[in-house]
Amino acid sequence: MSGSGSQFKQAEHKLLVIPGPIEFSDPVLLANATPGTAHTSPAFIPVFGESLKLLRKVLESTEESGSQPILIAGSGTLGWDAVGANLIERGDEVVVLNTGYFGDSFAECLEVYGAKVNQVKAEVGGIPTDEAIISALASKPKLLTITHVDTSTGVLSPAEHIAKLVKQHSPDTLIALDAVCSVASEEIKFDAWGLDVVISATQKGLGVPPGLSVVLASKRAVETLEKRKTPVQSYYISWNKWIPIMKNYEAGKPSYFATPPVQLIYALNTALKSIASASIGQRIEAHRAASKYVKDELTSLGLEFVPKSRDIAANGMTAVKFPTGVTAPDVLPKLAERDIVVAAGLHKAIATEYFRIGHMGITAVNRERGDLEKVIKGIKEVLGKN
Amino acid sequence: MSGSGSQFKQAEHKLLVIPGPIEFSDPVLLANATPGTAHTSPAFIPVFGESLKLLRKVLESTEESGSQPILIAGSGTLGWDAVGANLIERGDEVVVLNTGYFGDSFAECLEVYGAKVNQVKAEVGGIPTDEAIISALASKPKLLTITHVDTSTGVLSPAEHIAKLVKQHSPDTLIALDAVCSVASEEIKFDAWGLDVVISATQKGLGVPPGLSVVLASKRAVETLEKRKTPVQSYYISWNKWIPIMKNYEAGKPSYFATPPVQLIYALNTALKSIASASIGQRIEAHRAASKYVKDELTSLGLEFVPKSRDIAANGMTAVKFPTGVTAPDVLPKLAERDIVVAAGLHKAIATEYFRIGHMGITAVNRERGDLEKVIKGIKEVLGKN
Repeated sequence: MSGSGSQFKQAEHKLLVIPGPIEFSDPVLLANATPGTAHTSPAFIPVFGESLKLLRKVLESTEESGSQPILIAGSGTLGWDAVGANLIERGDEVVVLNTGYFGDSFAECLEVYGAKVNQVKAEVGGIPTDEAIISALASKPKLLTITHVDTSTGVLSPAEHIAKLVKQHSPDTLIALDAVCSVASEEIKFDAWGLDVVISATQKGLGVPPGLSVVLASKRAVETLEKRKTPVQSYYISWNKWIPIMKNYEAGKPSYFATPPVQLIYALNTALKSIASASIGQRIEAHRAASKYVKDELTSLGLEFVPKSRDIAANGMTAVKFPTGVTAPDVLPKLAERDIVVAAGLHKAIATEYFRIGHMGITAVNRERGDLEKVIKGIKEVLGKN
Repeated sequence: MSGSGSQFKQAEHKLLVIPGPIEFSDPVLLANATPGTAHTSPAFIPVFGESLKLLRKVLESTEESGSQPILIAGSGTLGWDAVGANLIERGDEVVVLNTGYFGDSFAECLEVYGAKVNQVKAEVGGIPTDEAIISALASKPKLLTITHVDTSTGVLSPAEHIAKLVKQHSPDTLIALDAVCSVASEEIKFDAWGLDVVISATQKGLGVPPGLSVVLASKRAVETLEKRKTPVQSYYISWNKWIPIMKNYEAGKPSYFATPPVQLIYALNTALKSIASASIGQRIEAHRAASKYVKDELTSLGLEFVPKSRDIAANGMTAVKFPTGVTAPDVLPKLAERDIVVAAGLHKAIATEYFRIGHMGITAVNRERGDLEKVIKGIKEVLGKN
């Protein structure tokens, strides 16, 4: 039984297997209950500084590369605004590779900041073709965005391959990876792939309560900020305000712009230390194994997936179609009765045809919890396949 | 000893008496350790909805007034951007009443969103004169901002009186109250005073870990948003995005724009229920009594305050000058050795001349904790006055 023995377990707690928020470990929850602590205290400063360093490590970047981690109170969505407000000036061309709902929203956000957006849309469940990407790069856009895992479709974009296409066809184009649903669950090699911005949140692969915007910016992205001709289009998410603060915390010095979410940073620190205690590669492998187990079991039940093939399906979640004649009300409430919370469909074009299972963090890595066996057993029962 | 018996007490925890973050109660910390819960779950929706209603109540507003509470992941600073991005269009005139550091920053933020700012600056420790305010209102600005308690000076602005001046001399001017350091520690009557925006954060009077931006907008502020001729200048903090979400949560319906900080909202709900269980008036009185105790004791030691008189001094904090010949290194580290954390000076003009003591939340209300007696005893010892 998931969470049994947790000191924080509530009578009504159900196993949370949506594509975020996910189940959190007890040490992370305990850290989130850290007593009142000053954001400038000698106890907290090294915790913040270490978290910045560990974030770089989890994303396979190095201090020598000049990459800049930025942790700000906010949702994952705030990362889109950070990209728009800091890197876009009115009229800048941006290519948005769209693999679902979150591509539409990222594009809408960038347009608020004056971007001229060219969306390269894949079919539902697919990814943009190389030809379409290369064609969009012909105009040498300032920025190209990739939704690494679009939570609405469960599609995993081949970020390494796309980054290679960009380097080959428009090397000055900045690459922003929306990794809200992929950090610490899918492979990301920030330096090796030549990424410029990774944006994420804490409540998915990192396994920390929601409320913290997680960003890593390359040296090239920071230089783009420095070369702006017009002012940054935000106060709160201006990297000009935050970069000195992050550098100070990383150097062990107190610093203030806006009060950081101290307890969430303690929680993130706890999670990052746990993640970094093994190799990142091992963690990604654990997510691949969890994903294979879930997808193999669902396949054996005759179910099909939203992603058109296994090689473009996320490892941290599964978007699975209902069998013919079955709809969400036949499945989701009955799983909830069994203390299992999965998510309904989100992509407008197919919302009623599928549901979503998250398998990130401790659910994927600490298999002895039995979370995934419980989910599969529940689905079998509900579909009458046991 | 503060926090003794707390199930979350850490060996190194020191009594936190800065002007935020403050000491948090155990029930609030436990709520912040709520296990993974979906932001759309039947368990969470009523908690969010109730929190919105309770926020209105704490600010002495009513649903009938059409006021709109908005809770978003972010720091208190994000509230400034919310005002700027939603209510300001390029060229709009704004009067910023400046009683310290935070007035400068609010003005800078509004300028990012295109405001033409007229700052009415008080002398350090003072408030703007009525004449200066009336004169600034002559141009009928779109918005006037008040820093209710400027944490850098401990000055409490007479918000009710200023609001009356605005209603009298420029009734169409919107009134925004920066109440980051005053919600739930100073009197705020949103409807009766005719305020249009109150912005705040959780880590001060509300007694909840930092990471949540707290806003209440009047019907008139929402109508100003609706009448904009140019688009809202942000995606993440666009009230057009958030108001429907907040209305849905308040009506008990799931809704999604960006993932809310679920655990922080559980924590806020716990704090708001505790606050609302007594009368708001009683709570404010408790803060006044705590403030009087601290200020009387410090006065008896011959110390003087940054605010020029008691009637413009905050009740949730005290900005107190060092005696002649004494500086921060003589006091703050020695208090820390006694497990007492106060804050250094922040206002540039006088930063080395004073320090700051917070007395909000459980430190002020649950006097049986003995927090304030411990602080006064510590100060007496450090200054050799015992």
